[in-house]
Amino acid sequence: MLVSQSPHANALADADAGTSPQALLERRARLLGPTYRAFYRNPIHLVRGSGVWLYDAQGRKFLDAYNNVASVGHCHPRVVEALSGQAATLNTHTRYLSDIILDYAEKLLGTCPAHLGHAMFTCTGSEANDLAIRIAQYSSGGTGVIITDFAYHGATIATAQLSPAAVGEKAVPAQHRIVAAPDTFRDHGRAARDFAKNVAAAIDDMHARNVRPAALLLDSAFSSDGIFFPDAAVMREAADHVRKAGGIVISDEVQSGFGRLGQGMWGFANYGIEPDIVTLGKPIGDGHPMGAVLVRPRLVASFGSNTGYFNTFGGNPVAAAVGIAVLEVIESEGLIENARTVGAYTAELLRTLKGRHGMVADVRHNGFYFGVELTAQGDEALAATKTSAVVEAMREDGVLISSCGPRGNVLKIRPPLPFARDNAEQLAETLDRALSNW
Amino acid sequence: MLVSQSPHANALADADAGTSPQALLERRARLLGPTYRAFYRNPIHLVRGSGVWLYDAQGRKFLDAYNNVASVGHCHPRVVEALSGQAATLNTHTRYLSDIILDYAEKLLGTCPAHLGHAMFTCTGSEANDLAIRIAQYSSGGTGVIITDFAYHGATIATAQLSPAAVGEKAVPAQHRIVAAPDTFRDHGRAARDFAKNVAAAIDDMHARNVRPAALLLDSAFSSDGIFFPDAAVMREAADHVRKAGGIVISDEVQSGFGRLGQGMWGFANYGIEPDIVTLGKPIGDGHPMGAVLVRPRLVASFGSNTGYFNTFGGNPVAAAVGIAVLEVIESEGLIENARTVGAYTAELLRTLKGRHGMVADVRHNGFYFGVELTAQGDEALAATKTSAVVEAMREDGVLISSCGPRGNVLKIRPPLPFARDNAEQLAETLDRALSNW
Repeated sequence: MLVSQSPHANALADADAGTSPQALLERRARLLGPTYRAFYRNPIHLVRGSGVWLYDAQGRKFLDAYNNVASVGHCHPRVVEALSGQAATLNTHTRYLSDIILDYAEKLLGTCPAHLGHAMFTCTGSEANDLAIRIAQYSSGGTGVIITDFAYHGATIATAQLSPAAVGEKAVPAQHRIVAAPDTFRDHGRAARDFAKNVAAAIDDMHARNVRPAALLLDSAFSSDGIFFPDAAVMREAADHVRKAGGIVISDEVQSGFGRLGQGMWGFANYGIEPDIVTLGKPIGDGHPMGAVLVRPRLVASFGSNTGYFNTFGGNPVAAAVGIAVLEVIESEGLIENARTVGAYTAELLRTLKGRHGMVADVRHNGFYFGVELTAQGDEALAATKTSAVVEAMREDGVLISSCGPRGNVLKIRPPLPFARDNAEQLAETLDRALSNW
Repeated sequence: MLVSQSPHANALADADAGTSPQALLERRARLLGPTYRAFYRNPIHLVRGSGVWLYDAQGRKFLDAYNNVASVGHCHPRVVEALSGQAATLNTHTRYLSDIILDYAEKLLGTCPAHLGHAMFTCTGSEANDLAIRIAQYSSGGTGVIITDFAYHGATIATAQLSPAAVGEKAVPAQHRIVAAPDTFRDHGRAARDFAKNVAAAIDDMHARNVRPAALLLDSAFSSDGIFFPDAAVMREAADHVRKAGGIVISDEVQSGFGRLGQGMWGFANYGIEPDIVTLGKPIGDGHPMGAVLVRPRLVASFGSNTGYFNTFGGNPVAAAVGIAVLEVIESEGLIENARTVGAYTAELLRTLKGRHGMVADVRHNGFYFGVELTAQGDEALAATKTSAVVEAMREDGVLISSCGPRGNVLKIRPPLPFARDNAEQLAETLDRALSNW
C-alpha cells in the first residue's frame, strides 16, 4: 500500500515508522489470538523505555504513571548490567550450588521480619501465589481460602479460581469464601470497618459446611478491588481470626511490595501483620520474570520432604543477579523515601483536584499507589464511562494511567519509583485537563 | 577458620575459592529450606558455563550431557547479546503494541503445522501446561485428563496434580486417568503396543463414571517415564480415540521440543500426530524464563472473549528477542542436523557399551535424547543403586548426566545441541569406565 493512500494522519506517521497500529492490531489478532488485549482505544506502539518515560514508534514521549513492574525505572542501567553480565557467565538452575542465589535470598529475607526464614523462587507472581496456596493447604490440612470480592491473584488454574476480578465470583470453587473488600470510601467505609467480622463469618460458614480453612489471601493494597488502605487493627484482627481457625495468613505483595507504599519494603508491615507467607512478583526484577515465596520454615518442613518443589528457571543465577541489583538500586537511590515523600506530594496535588472537580470523590494513597475514585451523582455506569474517558484523554495527553475496581470508577496510578516532583506535577496538570473536559 | 585447619583437600580448594560445598549446602538449607535439593552426593558449585561446558569454583571443567535448558549452549553469545540489547531498550508487557513479539510469534508458528495458528506466551513450561489444561477444559467442556503413570508436567497446583512422578499417583484427582507409559522395552514392549487400547479404556472408564474427557496430555519423549519413542501408528490411534471422545490432544514439548529429537523442531511430528495444543518451555530461551502455548485458533475463540488471559512477563520484548535469537541459532548452526547425526553417532557408541556391559539392557534414543536402561538380573533395587552409582561416578569423572523412570534405572542423557563427536566420545568413554567399575 502506498503511504499516500492512507487517509489518516496517524496511519501516515506510523507507516513512516514501519507499522501502523491498525496493522499491528490485526497481526496481533492473527498471531496471538483473542486473549491479547491492548490498553487504550488508541493503543501505543512502544519502542523504547528509560526511567519514568516510554517512547512510541513516532518518538512521542509518555510519562509512565502506571507500570509497577519496571519499578526502579524502565531499563535501569544497573539492572541491565547485572542481567547481561550474569547471562554471559552462568545461567543454570538450583540443582547445582551457586553463591549468588544465597546472597540474594539473604538480602531479600533481610528486608523481612525474622520469622520469614526461607525464600523459594518462582518465575511469576502467579506461580508464587500458586505455590503459597499449595503450601498453605498442605501445612494447614485445610482447603478453603478467603479472598476479597474483586481480588486478582494470578493466571494459573488455582490462582485464577481465586481471582474474581478475572473470572467472576461464580468461577470461585465452593470451598473458598469471598468477603467484601475493605472499601474505606463507599457506604462510609462500612466494609472496611466490618472486614474482620466478615472474615470471621466466612470462617464460621466454612466450619458449618465442613470445609477446613487453609488461608486468608490478601493483596496488601487491594489493587484490583479499588486500592484501599484499611485500618491496621481491623486487618490484624482478621489475620488473628484465620490463625485461630488453623489457617495461614498469606500477604500477596506482588503489587504492593518493594517499597511502593513508601513506609518500608512491604505493605503488610503497614498493618502490623506478621504473615506466615509473603508472595512476590511484578517489581521484583524490574521486568525480569521472577517471583518468590517467603515463608515460615515450619510450614515447609514436611512439604519439603514429602512433596518437594522445583522450578526450572526460578532462582537461577541471572534472576538472582537481577534481584540483587533491584534491591541495591532501591537502597542506593532512596526509592522508598522517594515513594513516601513524592507520593505525599502527589497525593496533595491530587487532593487539590478533588476540590476543583466534583467528579473526584476520594483520593486514597500510600506512597506511590493512588486510587482516585470518580463518581457521577450516583450514576455508576456514567462514572465508569467518565473514568475510561479520563484514562484515554490522559493517554492522548502523554500520561499513562489505568483504572480498577469492581465498578471501573477508580483511577489506578502507580508510577515507577523514581517518579519525581515535576513528574507528579505533570501528572496532576494532565489529570486536571482531562477532568476539566467533562 | 584458617585454611590449614581444614582436613579435606576438597575443602581446602573450596576454601580458596571462597565457600566449601558443605558450607553452601548448610547456607542453602537455612535460606532456601528443604525443597531445594542438589544434584549428586558431591554437589557441584558452578561459576561459569560456555557451550557444552560447565566450570566449578575450582576451575574444573564438566562436560554437560544433561542440561536441555541451555539447549543452544550455555551462555550463547548471540542469545546473550539479544537479551542484553533488548533489556537496555524496552521491557514492558503485551498490553502495549510491539513488533518483536509478533515477529517471534510468526517465526515460532512457522516451525509448526499451519493448524496451530495462535501463540500465547507464559514464563515457564508449568505455566504453559497449566494454561493448556485450562483451555482444553474450557473448550471441550470436559474435566478429565489422561496422563502416563510416571509423567511430569509441571509445578503449579493443576500441573503437579497431573505429575505422578512428582506427587505420586494417589495425588492425581479422581477425574483424571493414568495409563501405563508406552514402555518399548519392559515386558517386550507390551505397554507400548497396548498404549492406544489403554487410552481407549481410560476414556471408557471416564464415561462409565460420568467424567467428560478434556485432554490427552503427553510428553513426546516420555522423559520422566523412562524416555520412550513408541510406534507412530499407535500414538496416532491414541490421539484419535481422545478426539472422537471430544477431548483435546496436547503435546507437551517442554522437554522434546526445539530440535532435540533430531528429525525436526517438534517431537509430535515424529508420530505424525497433529496436536490441538503444543506446550513449550525449558529450551525455548536457552535459560531465559519463557514458555508458550501454540493452539488451534477455534479452541481459544470463546476462551479469549469470556475468560481472557494475561501474563505480566510473558511475551515481553526481552523474551521475544531471546526467543528469536534461539530460533536463529538453531537454524544458522544446523543444530537439528547436529542432533540427528551426532545423536546417531552417540547412540552407536552407547550401543557398543551394551555389548561390553551386561548391565546395559537397552539404549533408546531420538536425536540428542537418550535413555540407557540398566538392569541387574531382575533385582530392581540393585539396578537403581547401580544407576545412581554410575551417575555419581560420571560426575566425579567430569561428565554430567542423570537418571529417570519409575524404577530409577534409566540413565537420562540429553546434552546441549552443539554437542560434538568428540564430546560424544568423551561421554561414551566415561560411561564405559563407570560401568566397568561394577
